[in-house]
Amino acid sequence: MNLKIALLPGDGIGPEVLAQAVKCLQAVEETFNHTFAYKEAPVGAIAIDKKGTPLPESTLKLCHEADAILFGAIGDPKYDNDPDAKVRPEQGLLQLRKELGLFANIRPVLSHPTLLNKSPLKKEIISGTDFVIYRELTGGIYFGEKKLNEAGTVASDLCEYSEEEISRVAHLAFKAAKGRKKKLTLVDKANVLESSRLWRKVVTRIGESYPEVALDYLFVDNAAMQIILNPTQFDVILTENMFGDILSDEGSVISGSIGLLASASVGDENALFEPIHGSYPQAKGKDIANPIASILSAAMLLEHFGLHEEAMAVKKAVDKSLKKGMVTPDLKSKSQYGTNQVGDFIAHNI
Amino acid sequence: MNLKIALLPGDGIGPEVLAQAVKCLQAVEETFNHTFAYKEAPVGAIAIDKKGTPLPESTLKLCHEADAILFGAIGDPKYDNDPDAKVRPEQGLLQLRKELGLFANIRPVLSHPTLLNKSPLKKEIISGTDFVIYRELTGGIYFGEKKLNEAGTVASDLCEYSEEEISRVAHLAFKAAKGRKKKLTLVDKANVLESSRLWRKVVTRIGESYPEVALDYLFVDNAAMQIILNPTQFDVILTENMFGDILSDEGSVISGSIGLLASASVGDENALFEPIHGSYPQAKGKDIANPIASILSAAMLLEHFGLHEEAMAVKKAVDKSLKKGMVTPDLKSKSQYGTNQVGDFIAHNI
Ligand SMILES: CC(C)[C@H](C(=O)O)[C@@H](O)C(=O)O
Ligand SMILES: CC(C)[C@H](C(=O)O)[C@@H](O)C(=O)O
Repeated sequence: MNLKIALLPGDGIGPEVLAQAVKCLQAVEETFNHTFAYKEAPVGAIAIDKKGTPLPESTLKLCHEADAILFGAIGDPKYDNDPDAKVRPEQGLLQLRKELGLFANIRPVLSHPTLLNKSPLKKEIISGTDFVIYRELTGGIYFGEKKLNEAGTVASDLCEYSEEEISRVAHLAFKAAKGRKKKLTLVDKANVLESSRLWRKVVTRIGESYPEVALDYLFVDNAAMQIILNPTQFDVILTENMFGDILSDEGSVISGSIGLLASASVGDENALFEPIHGSYPQAKGKDIANPIASILSAAMLLEHFGLHEEAMAVKKAVDKSLKKGMVTPDLKSKSQYGTNQVGDFIAHNI
Repeated sequence: MNLKIALLPGDGIGPEVLAQAVKCLQAVEETFNHTFAYKEAPVGAIAIDKKGTPLPESTLKLCHEADAILFGAIGDPKYDNDPDAKVRPEQGLLQLRKELGLFANIRPVLSHPTLLNKSPLKKEIISGTDFVIYRELTGGIYFGEKKLNEAGTVASDLCEYSEEEISRVAHLAFKAAKGRKKKLTLVDKANVLESSRLWRKVVTRIGESYPEVALDYLFVDNAAMQIILNPTQFDVILTENMFGDILSDEGSVISGSIGLLASASVGDENALFEPIHGSYPQAKGKDIANPIASILSAAMLLEHFGLHEEAMAVKKAVDKSLKKGMVTPDLKSKSQYGTNQVGDFIAHNI
């Protein structure tokens, strides 16, 4: 297969971990006889520094032309505590999602057998966890109208959803549930929010076309409890943008390391793959960042194009590094292995 | 001291657990020579059944006249999956908060030494947890304008905050931090939301008047992780209404039982005390509901009026029931003790 892949390393540890994912994709090209063409472009704080905007035109163009995007990480602390900053690295990512129509963020949450002890949760609670969160990614309060009055004393954000926005991500989630454990949990706050009531109505109706999938509902506050009380009860969780942001980060704790979790953001015409961890600026350039989340993002990319065997080869190589303890210090204190070595090991085992 | 206390038992197990809290308050009256006058009124689903509205005028009037309100629980499943329901029990609670100006919800999160094993989190993670969440309770997306277009295909909720709304709850939170471990963490989503940026600006400025309190900031997605990764890092968490709803329920898991957690909702002129658990309709009338959260709400009520010794007496009696295993089955499987017996035991030990 020929694929054009846009590489957006971004900020902090983004470039280091992305480089390991690319090594793995190159190993896949060799082993399975594919041709992937890579082109790189800046995004985030580094793009602000270079071009004054977190998502330069040229970067967006590259993404539009590519079949898929491999994303590193975004963010720089110098923007976080400045409520008056006019440009922010995060805008780059948000705009990219919007411009490319990446309306569904997909985050698998798994408990890795070799890492059960790393989780703050008890082994017996998390063992066997295997669910996936479908988060709506281009609507809701993230993209609704924002206002600040002239005096700077009243601020607002609008959370708006249309039937169409709910329906397209819901269909993806139901299809996923159909191919998994056949359970879908809609998370909302329908006892308070009008938008949540629309979610409930639309999703309930769509559910009728998927009779083999059992549909249930949880209020978001209850969901925040259930995810840690009893994570094995879930199969597919479907939710709106803001709730998905919170719950998927909460869920990431189950696995024992945020350094292991990948995500896909998909739309009708494009798809972006990224680790769920941030830019982790304190670790930048130290060769200590865990590359596995980025490598597993590459595996999700392969999966997305139907390259199941290839994706499996990458995942197996990752499992091998976990089993052999060829991992960065976040997973095994005093580990001598750096980002690069772990990346090499995994690439060589593909 | 003379106090007029409005009793709002509400739905499900509300009446049963509230009755135990009243027993304890009566024991306090006797032991410490106070006079509390109780008046009861309906709220929630039961009020809809009786009077067609979840917050009847007469109930609101009673609350206005009272010095404090002791609340049971609210909610009935028959309303949850009906997106078209015109009245909902929850509206009663929301309206009550708004009408009485209860702008701050205060939820302590503690790990009880006798219950360390009940938590899904590892002992070493939660041991020593002692923080309190200050959640803004009468603003934000809960109360902003709600819209549904005529076709019923687009719905929206407005999240709006004014400086004034932020500032009054922030002052309470800073004062609390001053009397505790002197740390305040503001949780927001300032990298995305305009309203969050206003929160950050206002809280940062107010922080300057509390130089002894260390102020830091967390994005809500990160906060959802940190609360379970490392809960002992927190002292006072301050946040807006929706985030507070989610995070305080998540935090409740730490204690090992939602049946232990109380909350206070305070305003300039009135205060309401309630367990954080819901109406738990499946347990209604079975004498199995844990009354401790409701009893600890009564302790918070006493604390609120400066009755520290009295509050301490209630808390000590609760500790005794926990240590002796005089608890409901949710805390000790096969326990023979019911709601009433546990309530009696605690009241007798005051
Ligand atoms: C960086 C930030 C804007 C982003 C979000 O909130 O969507 C991130 O937290 C994520 O989940 O991808
Ligand atoms: C019942 C519901 C409306 C309420 C809320 O969301 O505020 C409850 O979850 C709470 O936290 O007190």
